[in-house]
Amino acid sequence: VKGERTEPPAIDLSADVGERNGSWSTQDDAGFLRLVTSASIACGFHAGDAVVMREMCERAVTHSVRIGAHVGYNDRLGFGRRRVNVAPSELYAETLYQVGALIACARAAGGRVAYVKPHGALYHRCLEDSEAAAAVVRAMSVVDPNLVAVAQPGSALLACAADGGLRSVAEGFVDRAYASDGTLVPRSDVRAVLDKERAVRQACEIATQGAVTTNDGSILPLTVRTLCVHGDTPNALTLVTEVRAALKRVGADIEPFA
Amino acid sequence: VKGERTEPPAIDLSADVGERNGSWSTQDDAGFLRLVTSASIACGFHAGDAVVMREMCERAVTHSVRIGAHVGYNDRLGFGRRRVNVAPSELYAETLYQVGALIACARAAGGRVAYVKPHGALYHRCLEDSEAAAAVVRAMSVVDPNLVAVAQPGSALLACAADGGLRSVAEGFVDRAYASDGTLVPRSDVRAVLDKERAVRQACEIATQGAVTTNDGSILPLTVRTLCVHGDTPNALTLVTEVRAALKRVGADIEPFA
Amino acid sequence: VKGERTEPPAIDLSADVGERNGSWSTQDDAGFLRLVTSASIACGFHAGDAVVMREMCERAVTHSVRIGAHVGYNDRLGFGRRRVNVAPSELYAETLYQVGALIACARAAGGRVAYVKPHGALYHRCLEDSEAAAAVVRAMSVVDPNLVAVAQPGSALLACAADGGLRSVAEGFVDRAYASDGTLVPRSDVRAVLDKERAVRQACEIATQGAVTTNDGSILPLTVRTLCVHGDTPNALTLVTEVRAALKRVGADIEPFA
Amino acid sequence: VKGERTEPPAIDLSADVGERNGSWSTQDDAGFLRLVTSASIACGFHAGDAVVMREMCERAVTHSVRIGAHVGYNDRLGFGRRRVNVAPSELYAETLYQVGALIACARAAGGRVAYVKPHGALYHRCLEDSEAAAAVVRAMSVVDPNLVAVAQPGSALLACAADGGLRSVAEGFVDRAYASDGTLVPRSDVRAVLDKERAVRQACEIATQGAVTTNDGSILPLTVRTLCVHGDTPNALTLVTEVRAALKRVGADIEPFA
Repeated sequence: VKGERTEPPAIDLSADVGERNGSWSTQDDAGFLRLVTSASIACGFHAGDAVVMREMCERAVTHSVRIGAHVGYNDRLGFGRRRVNVAPSELYAETLYQVGALIACARAAGGRVAYVKPHGALYHRCLEDSEAAAAVVRAMSVVDPNLVAVAQPGSALLACAADGGLRSVAEGFVDRAYASDGTLVPRSDVRAVLDKERAVRQACEIATQGAVTTNDGSILPLTVRTLCVHGDTPNALTLVTEVRAALKRVGADIEPFA
Repeated sequence: VKGERTEPPAIDLSADVGERNGSWSTQDDAGFLRLVTSASIACGFHAGDAVVMREMCERAVTHSVRIGAHVGYNDRLGFGRRRVNVAPSELYAETLYQVGALIACARAAGGRVAYVKPHGALYHRCLEDSEAAAAVVRAMSVVDPNLVAVAQPGSALLACAADGGLRSVAEGFVDRAYASDGTLVPRSDVRAVLDKERAVRQACEIATQGAVTTNDGSILPLTVRTLCVHGDTPNALTLVTEVRAALKRVGADIEPFA
Repeated sequence: VKGERTEPPAIDLSADVGERNGSWSTQDDAGFLRLVTSASIACGFHAGDAVVMREMCERAVTHSVRIGAHVGYNDRLGFGRRRVNVAPSELYAETLYQVGALIACARAAGGRVAYVKPHGALYHRCLEDSEAAAAVVRAMSVVDPNLVAVAQPGSALLACAADGGLRSVAEGFVDRAYASDGTLVPRSDVRAVLDKERAVRQACEIATQGAVTTNDGSILPLTVRTLCVHGDTPNALTLVTEVRAALKRVGADIEPFA
Repeated sequence: VKGERTEPPAIDLSADVGERNGSWSTQDDAGFLRLVTSASIACGFHAGDAVVMREMCERAVTHSVRIGAHVGYNDRLGFGRRRVNVAPSELYAETLYQVGALIACARAAGGRVAYVKPHGALYHRCLEDSEAAAAVVRAMSVVDPNLVAVAQPGSALLACAADGGLRSVAEGFVDRAYASDGTLVPRSDVRAVLDKERAVRQACEIATQGAVTTNDGSILPLTVRTLCVHGDTPNALTLVTEVRAALKRVGADIEPFA
């Protein structure tokens, strides 16, 4: 029962960062890295590049923010949000590549990559496609068995991580509407992305109640350890600022997962 | 005096491999990896990609071939052979990225990256541009201080490596004509790439005499520990085969550098 | 009845060309353009680039070869052979872009683009996906209503072209095995690509009999006006040479479609 | 004498637009296209892509904005602002490609490409490198001899255009500081990009006085027919809005060049 909970569990606050090209404009990312506890850094496939990755890693280390590899399809024009029929063996190689590249950038900054999170269409594919999820997990295991897999509750990625002996963490979304089956309302639906007020409310509900109000008004249990704000949601920086403040107001303990 | 040498020093035989996209055609590379002692693998910038890199690493491990990171400009259309005005700080990040990606692929194959060699226009830039060379060396040091820098004798890269505490190895070319100042005849000159017969002769001359006959007929001392065949030289596989046989005939000891 | 045909219809012989990057290696393409009557030029998405396109157009004009736009997915790593979930509206824009770019290159060479043929996974998608096929046709109509659509018999692209008032031409394949339902044996099957002897025989059978022997030995009627050799089939240049000679021997009239 | 001028000449107001990837975020561009008289659309090399180009063309036609091809180096990571050693013959082909692609997108939207303007490092190269400028002009002539070349006063591009029989238009910058020799203060200088107040003042000065106050306080004659705001200048949309209002206040006639 919701009312019985007296002490909200610790919650990690993360943002997708480094979703740009080149070195000419990363000001919002700098802001994110002062506010979040984890940063999912684009690895040059769906967005980002070596220069941005290096900068993100340095900022993350400066602000003691946990570094995650945001691995995606090599489809910059589609921002990694279009399905690409990458075979599992290709996905294995592309995960090695992206994670390895970020590990080097993180090491150069005096940090390390703590987790791996698929992006966009690959994130959604890994919900149900066990072969794809297993390929990602296999690449993680080989590169660094301490890497943590991050995915939605129920994702095949979490199951594969468990099978592969990797730790994993369940993720909730601040700025995206949930359907009553626990999936995200797809971006093709105009109500997919929440406005700021609703997003802040949803963050607090998830963090303190272990539940989320879905787009049909029902209450869905949702236990997660990390909350994500998308870097390209309009006014994402303001949103993260307000979410952080609101979480503190309701007594949530904002701290990275172990 | 040339005639006095009785025992040719050990020589490493290397090829540039993985200079393709995708998984649809790498047959020559498979051949190379049965013949060489070192393989310089393109890292997805001037050529190659994750799928090819993974395959190259696996073949290299199978055949006990040393793995090198062939880092280049992110200019696939120019095959890394056009100058790109990448700032040293960008070059540092791009070297981290490429070497890190290959390290992960090598580790997955049960191997490791032993050396780093710039490609094309970046190789030539590192001959004289100490800032660029230092950026590459700094990235190498941070990622893995055991990495060996490979470059032409006299290259700023070798000096920077020494300054940075990295080991380095001098490289000679089998299939490219030398000018009397020790530089390569540029590719814009029709005589830049040697025919097979001349290339085989040059390989033996370098390996056994520590010298090369330049394009004006003079003899130039040239002490190198590794000999490179370019992967895109016409009939490169046949060339490597014949070079290998010829080196054995003249008593050279073909083995990787330490 | 096969035996009754006394005069084989005219047949166009085409190759996929320009499937490279940059200017450093296009020798086979030069050979193709002396042998074929039509050249499907990659437009920089799945392969090729501006430099190669310009060269291909110039060679095509020199040899009076018809120029076609080989439009594909923007997936160079997958060589356009992986499905990418490009929405029809995106496909419309990407076809405009690719065809427009080639038109400019052709005009500069004193030629013109005569036809459009989707490549790889897009070619296969257009067999059945009427929305995708309609998007391609719409882009063609807008750019130049004289463009001819090229596709397999039965393809949705041919039907959409007819609906949109565009002419179209049915295509057969020299180097790919047919299944008994008229589809190509997929590339994942080791028997997908025919050896040279079988390919030459298939070319003649299609050109003179209006039929093809499928991979289960049955004879399938197949009426096409153009025959394609893939540029990346091993020894493609030799294959085209022999196909051309064989077609002449059996009395086929090799000429471009109108 | 400045004070004597009673009727300011007509001035074109342009913005660089479409400098994004994919379809997920172009809201500022939509704003620009309601405010400017000319739009320089990125052609997929330094930025932009087919989907964005199509949208930009449609918006430009809706708002009766003149369409220009903003051609650049194929260096997305460097945003076209790094020198790339593209040979003139390559530049010719790459200009054909980019302009051709935009012509098709413009035609599909019911518009046409009116002018060509190099971007970033290519713009600066064309100031002095006559070979490069001639290559761009030659491509323009071949594709459409009605295309107008846009460049800074004194640029080799303007001279080459005249030689090649093309019309050209001189361009001034709203948001960039001028040095006393008429060049732009380079972006590596922190004072390169003007703040809003100074930018608005500079726009009015150029439009009404035919002169600009340089970074050392001197007054430099500067006769231009079009004024450009960079799309990636911070708060560019607000800047364009205020520039437009200010130009009207001072009596400038904002209209496209012929």
